[in-house]
Amino acid sequence: MPEFFNVLPPDEARALLLQQLTAVLPSETLPTHQANGRVTSKTIFAPHALPQFRRSTMDGYAVRAADTFGASESLPAFLQVVGEVPMGKAAEVALGVGQAAIVHTGGMIPGSANAVVQIEHTQTVSGNPLSVIGEQLFPFEIEVLRSVAVGQNVLQVGEDVGLQAEILPAGHILRPQDLGGLLALGITAVSVVRRPRVGILATGDEVVHPEKKAGPGQIRDINSYTVAGLVEQAGGVPVLGGIIRDDLAALETAAASLLAETDMLVMSAGSSVSVRDMTVAVIDGLGKPGVLLHGVATRPGKPTIVGAVQNKPVLGLPGNPVSAMVQFDMFGVPAIYHLQGVQQMPRRGLVWARLGQNIASESGREDYVPARLEDGDEGLLAVPVFGKSNLIYTLVNADGLIKVPLNKGGLLAGEWVEVRLF
Amino acid sequence: MPEFFNVLPPDEARALLLQQLTAVLPSETLPTHQANGRVTSKTIFAPHALPQFRRSTMDGYAVRAADTFGASESLPAFLQVVGEVPMGKAAEVALGVGQAAIVHTGGMIPGSANAVVQIEHTQTVSGNPLSVIGEQLFPFEIEVLRSVAVGQNVLQVGEDVGLQAEILPAGHILRPQDLGGLLALGITAVSVVRRPRVGILATGDEVVHPEKKAGPGQIRDINSYTVAGLVEQAGGVPVLGGIIRDDLAALETAAASLLAETDMLVMSAGSSVSVRDMTVAVIDGLGKPGVLLHGVATRPGKPTIVGAVQNKPVLGLPGNPVSAMVQFDMFGVPAIYHLQGVQQMPRRGLVWARLGQNIASESGREDYVPARLEDGDEGLLAVPVFGKSNLIYTLVNADGLIKVPLNKGGLLAGEWVEVRLF
Repeated sequence: MPEFFNVLPPDEARALLLQQLTAVLPSETLPTHQANGRVTSKTIFAPHALPQFRRSTMDGYAVRAADTFGASESLPAFLQVVGEVPMGKAAEVALGVGQAAIVHTGGMIPGSANAVVQIEHTQTVSGNPLSVIGEQLFPFEIEVLRSVAVGQNVLQVGEDVGLQAEILPAGHILRPQDLGGLLALGITAVSVVRRPRVGILATGDEVVHPEKKAGPGQIRDINSYTVAGLVEQAGGVPVLGGIIRDDLAALETAAASLLAETDMLVMSAGSSVSVRDMTVAVIDGLGKPGVLLHGVATRPGKPTIVGAVQNKPVLGLPGNPVSAMVQFDMFGVPAIYHLQGVQQMPRRGLVWARLGQNIASESGREDYVPARLEDGDEGLLAVPVFGKSNLIYTLVNADGLIKVPLNKGGLLAGEWVEVRLF
Repeated sequence: MPEFFNVLPPDEARALLLQQLTAVLPSETLPTHQANGRVTSKTIFAPHALPQFRRSTMDGYAVRAADTFGASESLPAFLQVVGEVPMGKAAEVALGVGQAAIVHTGGMIPGSANAVVQIEHTQTVSGNPLSVIGEQLFPFEIEVLRSVAVGQNVLQVGEDVGLQAEILPAGHILRPQDLGGLLALGITAVSVVRRPRVGILATGDEVVHPEKKAGPGQIRDINSYTVAGLVEQAGGVPVLGGIIRDDLAALETAAASLLAETDMLVMSAGSSVSVRDMTVAVIDGLGKPGVLLHGVATRPGKPTIVGAVQNKPVLGLPGNPVSAMVQFDMFGVPAIYHLQGVQQMPRRGLVWARLGQNIASESGREDYVPARLEDGDEGLLAVPVFGKSNLIYTLVNADGLIKVPLNKGGLLAGEWVEVRLF
């Protein structure tokens, strides 16, 4: 049977896969402080304003701003300090005209005050700088050396977040500051999408477990572990299904059983035509729609098989370790985010650098060339690490992959290039 | 006592801290497949060459290259196929002059062969393309339509890694491809540096646990959790010590006890002068050298206190949530890597973008301004999110921080700027 290569550019191929994945995975509730890196399952609104009370941004005196108008070094305003607002307590002191109260940074502003004069712009009438630590006898008098405007040095109620404001959308990857923003509002539990479980099968008569001695003609399984690492980094849970012989029935059984207990299946097969044909047959046998495309206009990794079975992505990766990683990054990683409802892939890990050496390519193909990054005089330099896609150490010795865009016949030394850190 | 600000630029301040940390933490041995993100504790060498045997990079025929010299479509070379090399087995077939053997991609090359003719460049004498699947009767004859050079389509022994080659240096952060590279060589356990344990204390009479209702004058602790998130991302283990009152004796006791069981201590204090003075006293009381500097030429976060006690970093962060995160990223994160023996910080998370709006700053100060990233016509656009450093939502609504370099008075819209993804 003649082999049919439906070779699509990577962006189109990825779009074809993602449009098959119409349902976001179910959600679960987690303590907020354990949700770093997880994805919100619904929009989150502020249950109250933040801050909830007016706070001082300075050490100094809460005042009625009008009492300071016109104050200067040569003509200070005299105010009577009638109390102190303790940290963590309500501001119970009431200010009359010409009165002030000691406040500390972060402390509450009394209701009758509307600004804060910072301590450096005042002096006690005795002439010594006031110590805000320790005991203080009230009232005492200060000179205010600069006027303050209404609201100056004051955080207003709701200045950070207003009541009922949308604070995070659904499909947002939670970062440390997001956890902080939620906890500041007392949101100590959060609904996040369940982590996608990704089944991984290695196939090949020549492949042995890494614990085993590799005899003549044998190689150790590494794709299961490189793919598992990428799965974890994207927020998924790898489920290793082991090494399957090059036998259609054995592969069908293993694939069906692993797919049943996971949300996505990845088969890393050999690179011979017969093995690829077998992978196509297995994916088509798992369910509808089955194989979506066979072959992508990229190097390395052209013979990648992309499929889907009832909302679950199913990938057949080439056996070469470099191809397997590049192709999983191209299809598997976006699929893991998509299953979690993430609309935009994180930008972390994309850098621009100047190319250190010419790279040849072919128009109509997107190439990924391993590169080492070096600090150069004119910014970051990307130095290609050339080598066959069978050689895992081209990736070990690289910091990332240079992308040669689809419609470029190659890249010239000195050009700015996009490098995907790997 | 007058306050003394020893305000250093951030790079010098960081160097001052790191030079106090002279010992890398102890190591431990892990299964290689569980070591993603961990740091190697010693140089690793290849126990054998990779590949260990000569492998075919194509489906086709192993040949003696000389037998194909001069072959072309019009004048093919005739070869006698005497056997097949099964995948995962030694190549036991011996080739005489004018003989060939079927090999599959990744299969072993017989000792008497030195090249592979890919199947597309041959035909069986009957004229039908040969199926490499299924049973085959030997010998049979093929026509070779193109010559191959010695070594063509063959991976040589050691082409990926030579015997005893240095494959990874000490202080290397393991990535998925590194795990693959180790496992390919049968290195199934790896010595990595123990993850640094980072003690985190929140202090302040106004600070309450996020589970609690925040009354008038009170705020919930968030710095413990934002810092913990950054610690995890850098490969450390956060150890939360809770919230301590603004009381010197209480803080001294809590700090000493937490430092004793961790490798690094972070205190997130309030921002008032009295609280900062207390933090300085506590750090100096913990041991030598104590406080290294008090104040960094940055915004936000100028009043940061940087110290070290017997090879352990001790930081006093400002209480403002934005300052706390920016300053922990500036000092805490590099210290976590340094304690693991990492010489160069990972580049992941640094992007360049065009500035969307002018930013004012002051020469002699390094500013970090929260920014949202947008895809523009001329590449990535960084749009500043202005707001006081008390406002955690300036970070929630941002993708990263724009760095305004030390000696720039500001940045102009359209300039290329470095954005640290956060």
